[in-house]
Amino acid sequence: MPHPLDSFFAPQSIALIGASRDHEKIPGRLLSMLRKNEYPGKLYLINPSYAEIDGLACYKGVADVGMPIDLAVIVIPARAVLAALEQCAAVGVKNAVIISSGFAEEGGESAAMQDAIAALAKRTGMRISGPNAEGFYSQVQRVAATFSPAVDVKPDVAPLVATTRRIGIVAQSGGIGFAIYNRAKALGVALSYVVSAGNESDLGAGELFDYMVQDASTDVILLFIEGIRDVEKFLAAARRAAELKKPVIVTKVGRSHAGFRAAASHTASMAGWSGAYDAVFAKFGFIVSNDLDEAVTIAAVLASNPLPKGDRVAVLTVSGGAGIWGADSVSAQGLQVPELPPPIQAEIMTLLPSYGTAKNPIDVTAQGVTTGGLQRSVDLLTASDEVDAVLVVLSLSSDVRMPFKEAELKPLIAAQNKPVLFYSYTLPSDFARRTLAACHVIVLSGLTHAAVALRRLLDYSRFRLAPEPDMTLLPARDLSAHLKGRMLSEADSKALLQEAGIAIPDEVLVTEREALDAAIAKVGFPLVMKIQSPDIAHKSDIGGVRLGITTKGEAFSAYRDILERVKTLLPDAKIQGVEVSPMAKKGIEILVGSLHDETFGPLVSVGLGGVATELFRDVTYRPAPVSTAEAETMLGQLKAAQLLRGFRGAPKADIPALSKLISEVSVLAARLGDQVADIELNPVLAHPEGQGVTIVDALVVRKS
Amino acid sequence: MPHPLDSFFAPQSIALIGASRDHEKIPGRLLSMLRKNEYPGKLYLINPSYAEIDGLACYKGVADVGMPIDLAVIVIPARAVLAALEQCAAVGVKNAVIISSGFAEEGGESAAMQDAIAALAKRTGMRISGPNAEGFYSQVQRVAATFSPAVDVKPDVAPLVATTRRIGIVAQSGGIGFAIYNRAKALGVALSYVVSAGNESDLGAGELFDYMVQDASTDVILLFIEGIRDVEKFLAAARRAAELKKPVIVTKVGRSHAGFRAAASHTASMAGWSGAYDAVFAKFGFIVSNDLDEAVTIAAVLASNPLPKGDRVAVLTVSGGAGIWGADSVSAQGLQVPELPPPIQAEIMTLLPSYGTAKNPIDVTAQGVTTGGLQRSVDLLTASDEVDAVLVVLSLSSDVRMPFKEAELKPLIAAQNKPVLFYSYTLPSDFARRTLAACHVIVLSGLTHAAVALRRLLDYSRFRLAPEPDMTLLPARDLSAHLKGRMLSEADSKALLQEAGIAIPDEVLVTEREALDAAIAKVGFPLVMKIQSPDIAHKSDIGGVRLGITTKGEAFSAYRDILERVKTLLPDAKIQGVEVSPMAKKGIEILVGSLHDETFGPLVSVGLGGVATELFRDVTYRPAPVSTAEAETMLGQLKAAQLLRGFRGAPKADIPALSKLISEVSVLAARLGDQVADIELNPVLAHPEGQGVTIVDALVVRKS
Repeated sequence: MPHPLDSFFAPQSIALIGASRDHEKIPGRLLSMLRKNEYPGKLYLINPSYAEIDGLACYKGVADVGMPIDLAVIVIPARAVLAALEQCAAVGVKNAVIISSGFAEEGGESAAMQDAIAALAKRTGMRISGPNAEGFYSQVQRVAATFSPAVDVKPDVAPLVATTRRIGIVAQSGGIGFAIYNRAKALGVALSYVVSAGNESDLGAGELFDYMVQDASTDVILLFIEGIRDVEKFLAAARRAAELKKPVIVTKVGRSHAGFRAAASHTASMAGWSGAYDAVFAKFGFIVSNDLDEAVTIAAVLASNPLPKGDRVAVLTVSGGAGIWGADSVSAQGLQVPELPPPIQAEIMTLLPSYGTAKNPIDVTAQGVTTGGLQRSVDLLTASDEVDAVLVVLSLSSDVRMPFKEAELKPLIAAQNKPVLFYSYTLPSDFARRTLAACHVIVLSGLTHAAVALRRLLDYSRFRLAPEPDMTLLPARDLSAHLKGRMLSEADSKALLQEAGIAIPDEVLVTEREALDAAIAKVGFPLVMKIQSPDIAHKSDIGGVRLGITTKGEAFSAYRDILERVKTLLPDAKIQGVEVSPMAKKGIEILVGSLHDETFGPLVSVGLGGVATELFRDVTYRPAPVSTAEAETMLGQLKAAQLLRGFRGAPKADIPALSKLISEVSVLAARLGDQVADIELNPVLAHPEGQGVTIVDALVVRKS
Repeated sequence: MPHPLDSFFAPQSIALIGASRDHEKIPGRLLSMLRKNEYPGKLYLINPSYAEIDGLACYKGVADVGMPIDLAVIVIPARAVLAALEQCAAVGVKNAVIISSGFAEEGGESAAMQDAIAALAKRTGMRISGPNAEGFYSQVQRVAATFSPAVDVKPDVAPLVATTRRIGIVAQSGGIGFAIYNRAKALGVALSYVVSAGNESDLGAGELFDYMVQDASTDVILLFIEGIRDVEKFLAAARRAAELKKPVIVTKVGRSHAGFRAAASHTASMAGWSGAYDAVFAKFGFIVSNDLDEAVTIAAVLASNPLPKGDRVAVLTVSGGAGIWGADSVSAQGLQVPELPPPIQAEIMTLLPSYGTAKNPIDVTAQGVTTGGLQRSVDLLTASDEVDAVLVVLSLSSDVRMPFKEAELKPLIAAQNKPVLFYSYTLPSDFARRTLAACHVIVLSGLTHAAVALRRLLDYSRFRLAPEPDMTLLPARDLSAHLKGRMLSEADSKALLQEAGIAIPDEVLVTEREALDAAIAKVGFPLVMKIQSPDIAHKSDIGGVRLGITTKGEAFSAYRDILERVKTLLPDAKIQGVEVSPMAKKGIEILVGSLHDETFGPLVSVGLGGVATELFRDVTYRPAPVSTAEAETMLGQLKAAQLLRGFRGAPKADIPALSKLISEVSVLAARLGDQVADIELNPVLAHPEGQGVTIVDALVVRKS
C-alpha cells in the first residue's frame, strides 16, 4: 500500500541544495555519501557558485532543474533556508530534509524561522524533516541523505550481512541513530532505514515511526526518544505495530533529573515524564532498553530468530565455567535451564568424552567439537520439544578455526523453529562473524545482553494487546458539581466516586454530636472515626483518626477528642465533620490512582500500598482507560503480585474485584480528562477471593 | 619480599614434559607459545621420542637435564603424570603445572590419581598446579605456560597498551580466565598474570589469589570463582588485599539452580551458597560483577584512573542525545550530575556555539571540537573542585580524525586527580584506541558499564575494612545445656539468648493455670500470650497467639482457649506452657539471625522483617562475628535503611541498639560454631532512637 512518505524515503530524484566540492565539510560529505552509496535515482546539484562539481552539472536554483524533484536535501546557512524552501514549493518539490542547524535549538529569531518553516509545510503540503537533522539512510534503496560517517563505504571491506530480516531506526538524535546503525552493522544486521528526526518542524518522530510500522522491508523497529511531539500519530503507529506484531525496541532518555533538564532544552523537545512513556510502552508491548549494546543485541536476535514458545533454555558450551555462567545469566532473567530428558542426554553423551555432561548446561568439551558432539547437540536441541531456546556459549576468536561446518549448520538455522543464540566469550574474530553470517548466524559478544534478549523475546511472544475497556462500566454522569475545591476531603472525594458509580463502604459524615447515635446505628461496631477537612491531607498525623471503636462511650469521647485536637493543632482548618465508617475486614493494602501527564493525558496507577509504595517503588502505570484484563496485567507486573496470589499460605486476593476497581478508576480518570489532576485511593483493601475490595481512604485533586 | 610461588610465576628454567612438534595439538602449542612470547629463561624439552624439536635439544626425562628446574609444564597422558612427577621431585623440580586432563573431573580411578598427586605434593614440598589446568601467562616475565590462543603473538600487530598499571587474573576456568585477558588486552589494559586453577590438587585459587595480592606488579585483581577450596588462604588473602587497598573484582558463578548443579560437578569444586560468598565479598570490599565486559571495564577504569573523592559527575559530550543518555546512565547508578557553577559554565561557553550548553551534561557540539571547547572543558573539569569525575561521551569511530591533540591531552591525563572516562557511542576505531592509548586513555564502548564502573570506584573509595568485633560483648559461658532438642521453642530459645547475655523482655513461661496471676503481676497489661512447644514453629497459624490482652478475665480465658485449640489441632505436640510477655512498644520489624554455611561457617543476617523479607529479598549477610560498626554498615545496605533513618516524618530508629544486637548475635553464632544451624529473631522491633530494641520472637535450631 502506498504511503505519503514513500517519495521521501525512496525518492526517484534528489536535489542537493548547497552542494559543495569540499569533502571535509558537511555539504561536500553529503554529496560524497550519496555517490559512494550509488544512489540509483536522479541527482541534481544546486549551488549558484559552481557550474559543475565532480563531473555533475550544478544548477543555480531548483527552478532551473526543470524536472520533477521528490526530495530536496538542504544544507545551506540557516537564514537562506526559508527562501530555498519557497522555491522548492513553487516548483512542486514533494519533500525536504533540512540538515542546516541554527533554528529552535538557538531560540529567539532562529526559532521564529523554524516556525515559518512549519507554517510553510502546512500551507504548501510539502513534507519537511528537520531542520538540524542528520538526515537519513536507506539501505534498500541506497539513499544516503546524510553526512554521517556511519554510512561511508569502504571499498576494500565487504559488508557483513547475517540477517535476512531488516531493522529500521528512528532517532531523535542523529548521533545516536547512526551509532545504533554503526553497531548493528558490525554484528551483521541488515537495515531498512535509519532516520534522524532533527527539530521536527513538520515531520515528527511519531510519523517517521509510522512509516517504519507499515513498511514491508522493516521487520524490527528501534526508537530513540527524547520527547514525542506528534503524540496522536505516535500512539496510532504504536497500536498498529502491536496489531501487526512488528517488534519495537525503544530507548527513552531524559529519565534522570540532569537528563530531563538537558532533554527539555536540546532540540527544544518536550521530554515529559518518563513514567508516562513507560506506561505507553507497556500498553503496546514495546521492548524497553536503556543500553545501546543491549538494544542492538535484542534487535539482532529478533532479526535472526523466531520467537520462543516457552521459557526452557538449553545452554550448550565447550567450556565448563562458561556454561555455568551462561546458565546463571539465563536464570537471572527468570528463564528455566531444566535438566534435559534422559534420552536426549544419552544421545548427546555418545559423542562426548566421559568428562563432558549433557544435563544442562551441556558441556561438550573441546573434544566434543572434533567428535561432532557440538553440531549434533545443536541438531538435537533444535529438534526437541523439551527445549524452547538454545544458547550456544563458545570461543570464536580464532582467525582460522570454526567449530561448525557451514554445510551442516546452514540448513539447521534455515529450518530453526526456536531461537538459537551464539555467544562468544572471547572477542569474536572477523573470520568467525563472516563464516557464521553465511549460515545466517549472528555472533553475540555480551552474555548478559544475550540473556536479556531471550527474556525480552519471551515477553514479546506472550504480549497481547489489551482489549478496549468497557466504558459502560460507569454510567456517564456530570460530576462537575463535585469538583468544588482544588483538594477534596475524603468525604467529598468518596461522594464523587459514589456518584460516578464506584462502590464505597456505608459511611456517615457526622457534622453534629446529635447525629452520632444514628451514624453508629447505621455503621455498627467496630467502627472508625476520621476528621474531614479539605485542608487536612494527613489525618492520622494530627490525631484525626481513631480505629477499632467498639462502644458508644468510646465513640462519643473519640468524637470530642478528635475535634478538640484538630481545633488546637489546626485552628484555621475548615472542618466538615467526622466520618464514621465500619472497621474494614482484613486485606492487602493496595494503592489505586490516576494522574494527568502533560504528554499522554490521564494515566491509571496501581501499587502495593502503605510504606512499600515509596520504599520499593512497587507501582505500575497505564494510559487511562484500561479494561479489567489490562488491569489484571498491571497487577501481575507488581512485585507484590505474589502477595495477591496468596503468599506463604495466605488466601488469594480478590483479583477480579480489584481489577474491576482499577478499570473503573481509569474510566473515570479518562472521562474527567484534564479536569482532575489526581485520584488516590490509598489504601484499597483487597480481601480474599470472592470478598471484594474496600476503599478505605480517597483523595481527589482538581486540576488548577 | 620473596614469596614461595615466585619460582612458579617467574621461573628461571622450565621443563616442558611432553614437548611435541605438532603445533596443531596442545603439546605443540605449548612449545610454540613459550617461544613466540620469547620466554627469557632456560627451556628444556622432555620427550623420549625425539632428539630435538625445532632446533632445541630434547631430553628423555627430567633426570637427564642435569640443571636446576624451577617449573615443569606437564602435558602427557594422565596415566603417565604421576611417574613424571616422581621424577621431577627426585631431581628437585620446584613447581609443576599439569595441563593434562582425565583426573577428578572423570571420577573413579582417575580421581584417585589426582589424590595421589596431592599426596605427592604434600610429601615432597613440590608445588603443583592442576591437573586439568590451562596453565598461566606472565606478561611481565614473558612466561606463556599455556596453550591458550589468547597469548598468541601476531607479529604484524603491535600490542595495544594504554595503562601503566597492570591487572592480575585468577580463574577457576581456563576458558574464562583467558577470555578476560583477551577482552582486557583489546582495550589496552596491561597484564601481570593470568592463571587458571584447574583441579587444584595442591595449589588452590586462594593461594594463587594470595600471590596476586602481594605481587608488586599487580595493581588490580580479577577473580573468576566457581567454588573456593582453600578457604583459609582465600580469606587471609582477601583481608590483606583490603588492608593494602588493592582492588579485587570478582565473578562468582554457580548462582542459579542449573549453574550450581553444573559447578558442583565441574572440576569437582565445592560451589557453595552464593549468598555466603557475597557476604565474604562485602566484608572485604570486593567489587562483584557478573558480566564479563562489565568486570573488564571496571578493571580497565581502575587500572587507568585514581579513585573519585565524591559522587559529582560531569558528563561532557559532542552530541545532545548522547549527553542526555550519559547523564541518565550515571544517575541510574545513584551518582549526581549537578549543574556546574556559573563561572565554569561561563568559561566553557566562550568556546561554544550559542546552541551548545555548559550546564551538565555539557554539550560542546561538533563545532566545539574544532574551536577547542572540548579540550578546554576537559581541562576545566579536571581542575575543578566542584566535580569528582568526568565522563566524556563522543564518537571515536573515525580511522583518521581525533577530537583531541596528544600534546594537550597527555599531560592532563598524567596529572589527573579524578577519574576521566572516555566512552564512544560508535564502535571505537583501532586508530582511536591507539592514538588515545599514547595518552594513557582507554576508550570504553559500553555506557552502562562505564557508569557502573564509576559507581563501583566510588563505593570502593568509601569502603573501610570493618574493625574486629568486641568479643567481650557477651560473656563466655557454656550454653550446651540449652541445646537440648533440634528445634528450640521460643521460650527455650530466649532462655539460651538470655543466658548468653542478650537482653530479652520480662517474660514468664506459665506452665499451670495457678501461676498466671503471678505472671500478670510481673509483666503488667497490656500483655501477649503465646503457646510454647518445640513442635510448633508457626504459633499464630494455629491460633496459639493472643495479642493486646488488657484484663485478668481476658487473660484467663485466653490461656484456656490457646491450650484447648492446640490440643485439638496438634494433639501430639509437646506443650511447655504459655509464655506471657508485655505487649511491645511500636517499632520497625527487623529480622536478625545467623546460619551456618558449608564453606565459610557461621554468617549473621539482617533484613526487613515481616512479608518484605521474602517478597523483596531485603536481607544482607556477613561472616560472623561482626563489630557494631560492621552491623551498622549492613543496615545501611538494606533498602529498608530509609525506614530506619526516619521515613516520611517517622522518627529515626535506634540504630545503635540494633547494631549492638546484630553484633551480639554474630558473636554468639561464631562462639557456637557449628553446634547451631540457625538463629532467627523475627521480628525484632527497632524502637525510636534511644528506646532500644525488643526481641519479640526467637528460634534457635541446633545443627543435626
